[in-house]
Amino acid sequence: MKKLILLFFTSIFFNIFLNAENGYRLWLRYDLISDQKILENYQGTINSILTEYNSPTMDIAATEFQTGLEGLLGIQISKSSITDHDGTIILGTNEKSEIINSIITQSEFEKINDEGFIIKTADYNDKEVIIISGKKDIGVLYGVFHFLRLLQTHSDIENLSVISSPKIKLRILNHWDNLDRTIERGYAGFSIWDWHRLPGYIDPRYIDYARANASIGINGTAITSVNANALVLTHDYLLKVKALADIFRPYGIRVYLTARFSAPIEIGGLKTADPLNTEVKNWWKEKAKEIYSLIPDFGGLLVKANSEGQPGQQDYGSSHLEGANMLAEALLPFNGVVMWRAFVYHNEDPEDRAKQAYNEFKPYDGKFLKNVFIQIKNGPIDFQPREPFHPLFGAMPETPLMMEFQITQEYLGQATTLTYLAPMYKECLETDTYAEGKGSTVAKIIDGSLDDYSLTGIAGVSNIGTDCNWTGHVFGQSNWYAFGRLAWNHELTSEKIADEWIKMTFSNDPEFVNKVSAIMLSSRETVVNYMTPLGLHHLMGWDHHYGPGPWIKDKQRTDWTSVYYHRADSIGIGFDRTGTGSGAVNHYYPEVAEKFSSLDNCPEEYLLWFHHMDWNYKLKSGRTLWEELCYRYYQGAESVREMIKTWEALKDKIDEERFNHVRMLLNIQHKEAIWWRNACVLYFQTFSKQEIPAGLEKPDHTLEYYESLKFPYAPGIKPKWE
Amino acid sequence: MKKLILLFFTSIFFNIFLNAENGYRLWLRYDLISDQKILENYQGTINSILTEYNSPTMDIAATEFQTGLEGLLGIQISKSSITDHDGTIILGTNEKSEIINSIITQSEFEKINDEGFIIKTADYNDKEVIIISGKKDIGVLYGVFHFLRLLQTHSDIENLSVISSPKIKLRILNHWDNLDRTIERGYAGFSIWDWHRLPGYIDPRYIDYARANASIGINGTAITSVNANALVLTHDYLLKVKALADIFRPYGIRVYLTARFSAPIEIGGLKTADPLNTEVKNWWKEKAKEIYSLIPDFGGLLVKANSEGQPGQQDYGSSHLEGANMLAEALLPFNGVVMWRAFVYHNEDPEDRAKQAYNEFKPYDGKFLKNVFIQIKNGPIDFQPREPFHPLFGAMPETPLMMEFQITQEYLGQATTLTYLAPMYKECLETDTYAEGKGSTVAKIIDGSLDDYSLTGIAGVSNIGTDCNWTGHVFGQSNWYAFGRLAWNHELTSEKIADEWIKMTFSNDPEFVNKVSAIMLSSRETVVNYMTPLGLHHLMGWDHHYGPGPWIKDKQRTDWTSVYYHRADSIGIGFDRTGTGSGAVNHYYPEVAEKFSSLDNCPEEYLLWFHHMDWNYKLKSGRTLWEELCYRYYQGAESVREMIKTWEALKDKIDEERFNHVRMLLNIQHKEAIWWRNACVLYFQTFSKQEIPAGLEKPDHTLEYYESLKFPYAPGIKPKWE
Repeated sequence: MKKLILLFFTSIFFNIFLNAENGYRLWLRYDLISDQKILENYQGTINSILTEYNSPTMDIAATEFQTGLEGLLGIQISKSSITDHDGTIILGTNEKSEIINSIITQSEFEKINDEGFIIKTADYNDKEVIIISGKKDIGVLYGVFHFLRLLQTHSDIENLSVISSPKIKLRILNHWDNLDRTIERGYAGFSIWDWHRLPGYIDPRYIDYARANASIGINGTAITSVNANALVLTHDYLLKVKALADIFRPYGIRVYLTARFSAPIEIGGLKTADPLNTEVKNWWKEKAKEIYSLIPDFGGLLVKANSEGQPGQQDYGSSHLEGANMLAEALLPFNGVVMWRAFVYHNEDPEDRAKQAYNEFKPYDGKFLKNVFIQIKNGPIDFQPREPFHPLFGAMPETPLMMEFQITQEYLGQATTLTYLAPMYKECLETDTYAEGKGSTVAKIIDGSLDDYSLTGIAGVSNIGTDCNWTGHVFGQSNWYAFGRLAWNHELTSEKIADEWIKMTFSNDPEFVNKVSAIMLSSRETVVNYMTPLGLHHLMGWDHHYGPGPWIKDKQRTDWTSVYYHRADSIGIGFDRTGTGSGAVNHYYPEVAEKFSSLDNCPEEYLLWFHHMDWNYKLKSGRTLWEELCYRYYQGAESVREMIKTWEALKDKIDEERFNHVRMLLNIQHKEAIWWRNACVLYFQTFSKQEIPAGLEKPDHTLEYYESLKFPYAPGIKPKWE
Repeated sequence: MKKLILLFFTSIFFNIFLNAENGYRLWLRYDLISDQKILENYQGTINSILTEYNSPTMDIAATEFQTGLEGLLGIQISKSSITDHDGTIILGTNEKSEIINSIITQSEFEKINDEGFIIKTADYNDKEVIIISGKKDIGVLYGVFHFLRLLQTHSDIENLSVISSPKIKLRILNHWDNLDRTIERGYAGFSIWDWHRLPGYIDPRYIDYARANASIGINGTAITSVNANALVLTHDYLLKVKALADIFRPYGIRVYLTARFSAPIEIGGLKTADPLNTEVKNWWKEKAKEIYSLIPDFGGLLVKANSEGQPGQQDYGSSHLEGANMLAEALLPFNGVVMWRAFVYHNEDPEDRAKQAYNEFKPYDGKFLKNVFIQIKNGPIDFQPREPFHPLFGAMPETPLMMEFQITQEYLGQATTLTYLAPMYKECLETDTYAEGKGSTVAKIIDGSLDDYSLTGIAGVSNIGTDCNWTGHVFGQSNWYAFGRLAWNHELTSEKIADEWIKMTFSNDPEFVNKVSAIMLSSRETVVNYMTPLGLHHLMGWDHHYGPGPWIKDKQRTDWTSVYYHRADSIGIGFDRTGTGSGAVNHYYPEVAEKFSSLDNCPEEYLLWFHHMDWNYKLKSGRTLWEELCYRYYQGAESVREMIKTWEALKDKIDEERFNHVRMLLNIQHKEAIWWRNACVLYFQTFSKQEIPAGLEKPDHTLEYYESLKFPYAPGIKPKWE
């Protein structure tokens, strides 16, 4: 009978849901488990849910759990109030659930923090039960999502004993969303925040956004662009923000806003925004009071001041310290934080942009108020496909430093490119800064374990938009997922996260999982190879950052050009940042600085970041620099072709809609890889004056052709401010 | 057994598809029919599909049909090649299908045109079969959608005999979509045309767009904004357009583009765009050749020239006649058409904008090349909630006139307002112009039956965007649907179309259908009442056209202000367009002009369109004009409250997601109705100097408050061109 039902169900399934596989469901798919043995095992282990009390978060946890279990197991899951049978799952905190308190000891609870959870198989009244508990309800919700993940990935659920807590306190998405719903560097449509129809219209998407984030432990969202608009701080807009905050609250997500430094002038009617001016200080204090009266758990303010034309304290002769502390003082009574971005550069050309943030911020270490974070991009330039870690990590032991990763693929092929970014995030997090001797990894700085920060935080610049699949490229979802999982636990491997995501998003079929995992794990290196190999950086097209533009020069600022960074000439290529050059390498601790400074010891992936090298320099491979450069570009493009072959062979393993979606995008990516390769090799050849090595196919267009390409309507372009 | 399966199916159904009811499926829903008696009747009548040949359109028809039938009937539908049993449905044309030719006579086929279809129950080899046939494959596809509609609306399918042909040849959507994916007057997100990823990435949405349009008989789409961008005519963009055309072709849909008159300068490198210049003429001829080499069935060009700052022939001293004929000559060898918009107004202030199109175009009647349409908005101003019909209808018997309706709700509350527009379209189409005596309705002009036009056409300005539900407000879908159905057959009643749409989109439950139908049928009158009652027009907010702005004055042009149109003063209100005023009324045929000119005979809904009337004028209701104005505004807002009550009572009749979607939007609409009412009544009160009639509640804000409201990021704002 059961078999028959399933057969019927499956046959109808694909017929009636046209476009059901549009990717909207992300990794939160609760379709019936197709492996009969595993299904029967789960069905035999689980049959009901027990909660001893209600709360907004507990109700959400119970409903999500019931929905998930019924979908995955294809059986009715009752909400029971007694445990007179095996197979009950009990949800609750130790504080409010008597049953849980009687099973899990206080010392076990001490192993988790306020957001952590414990999942445990236990006996209760001679019945086998499973406990999902936390110190707070939000821990229970996180535990529920973890348990569902176990089922989605066909994991063993016998004798469970899971104890898990997030290593970092604030795990935040940064949306670079404008109030007109365009997204700066967004490649997945409009902003999901429908400001015009808020607060009256609550798009169901807000709830699914909260579910998705809670499922991976993200607990904050800064919903407006760092190039901020003061309007969002007006009362009418704050009512809209409140509506979002009210939805997100039971999912453990706090709302943050970006503060435009000149808001006291623009919406406050003041004549100045000088951070030392009393009226200005009071304006911000009153504004904070207003915000917290509407949103008692408001997270705080994210600020980009005096960078790329944004207003700031320096307009009044004040420092970043004074600017940040003024805002922090306003938020302090309400426990709000200031996330002050270190991505700043003066309007004058710096000697080396890689040095500027360090020079500006290091002197203030220890002087910020306790609710100030300095939010630092992973590398010292700007989210390039590969950068060495930012030298500020380790340089400010007295100041909480917050990591800013970019999830949206501004410089990594935007929404036509499959590139899994966990390896990039991990590469940065696991690098040793030697700040306090060997083992002082970036991760230990961020999670506070090295310097015992009072605050810890990590931010990811979101790739989410109104596209039905959220991220434009369905594989873009993996980067949102990976960011959340690493923010919770940076010790997870890229392999483990990919494995989870593939199984939850597509299939548990071992061949599919293995092959797609292989594609994902090599995909970022592939992009580096065909875009910016060997430490090259900032070679992209002007303005839109789409495609290659190594020839970009003669702009308002030299450090907005490509030639500033690659410095190719008849002798060689690369930016000398050693002692003979800009000296930026000396911002690192000696162990790191020495390694990067030495041509012999510098890892090949950073060579041209730190050194200007002769075209004929012999690398370890035995190839000259010119040959290796060509080889990497060609290897990168070739790898995309191989990705396509692998994907094509998986046609029958998943639904046609998502298969075709990825297939078409991989074909575009292949064209783009060849475009990058050809444009860069032809351009650098004008300096090296050497042939493309034998055996590599000749570019099918001229350099002039590539230079002539124009993309006036490439998506995600930054609003002009000059 | 069957019952059991269904039970299981239904219980799972709502659990696993989170957000399944997001409106994406439009009216093309093929869920299992819930009425057991009807289901069994259909299951007993239909069991297989037979097609005797393949073609792209036939393959689509057969697949859609199979998908639809299997979903609706919950049984396997085989594709058979023989009719050895009852219940086979045979698809094909008389030309290619021998079976069909043996059943349907030539004289029957003569009753349909090339796009028409015949559906007929018949006996073949002693078996009962159903024929769905046409002269061309596209007719078969239209027939398939018609048949599915019969099932979706639970219609009787015994002894079918349906003969149907479209009354109008070109049934076209006009997308005001910009190449940067913003949509002018779009309230449902970005443009669905993903130019950046075309031609490599084919969004599945393009196919669903084509399906939806084919299902209601729309056979053309002008995919770019009338405020045109020449870039779309460059070769790279034409390759993208070709990709769309290739997808749409088997669905019977041709692609049209908008032509920027200055394209020869902007992308052609010429020094002029003068339509009499030989180089310019040749440039357009070559461009046409290029387009048709890529897209052999390209539909033609839609042109907005010399209006609202757009370039045009008048920049060179030429006329609309010369401009249109120049483009028409380029397209003529390929059977392409020019759709030349009559929505033109000079940059100088006219005496009365309502007169300008008539004055500019009437003199050229009969002088355009045979492939030129003049495309005219339904009314002489600009898509107001109510306008009298455009006086050009009937005034150009020698020139094919094409109707332009607006589906997107620019002036009708945008995407927060439920307003069903079939009654508005019908009101215009059924009006008698008296052009050739009584019975000369606008519809008969448009469908060519009055003047025997060689070309006939109708256009609807699309309300489609990237929102998952396509139109922002799920009821916006009904206007897309109604436009298509009326374009096919303008004799269909608003009631019939609403009935179909409700049943296909929501439910066949009689109570639900009746109550929602009542809401829809009165909804446009409701909007007129609370926005622009009694013939008032153009009272909306500046620029964004959102909300009330009767106080708008002192702009670049007087005819962009509200005061220009309502002319309220201490004596009265309204625009005198009779002989004592602008005389615009005399553009109508005498029977019409006399009716509108007479205060006694002029329908109340047009009073203030044609007359400046005393505040104390006694209307038929016995109320004074001032009282009636107030009464209408209050009645309009009250009607929205009643719509909410009706909708709330239907909570259990449909899915929670769409129920809540509409409920939230109705609540917003109610607030907006009160806003319109209060703002307008308070504003006009400053002229009438009279009290709001007793019994009507006092506005809760002051006029100053309403005047102070600002909406800097209201959606759909037109790009600035001044």
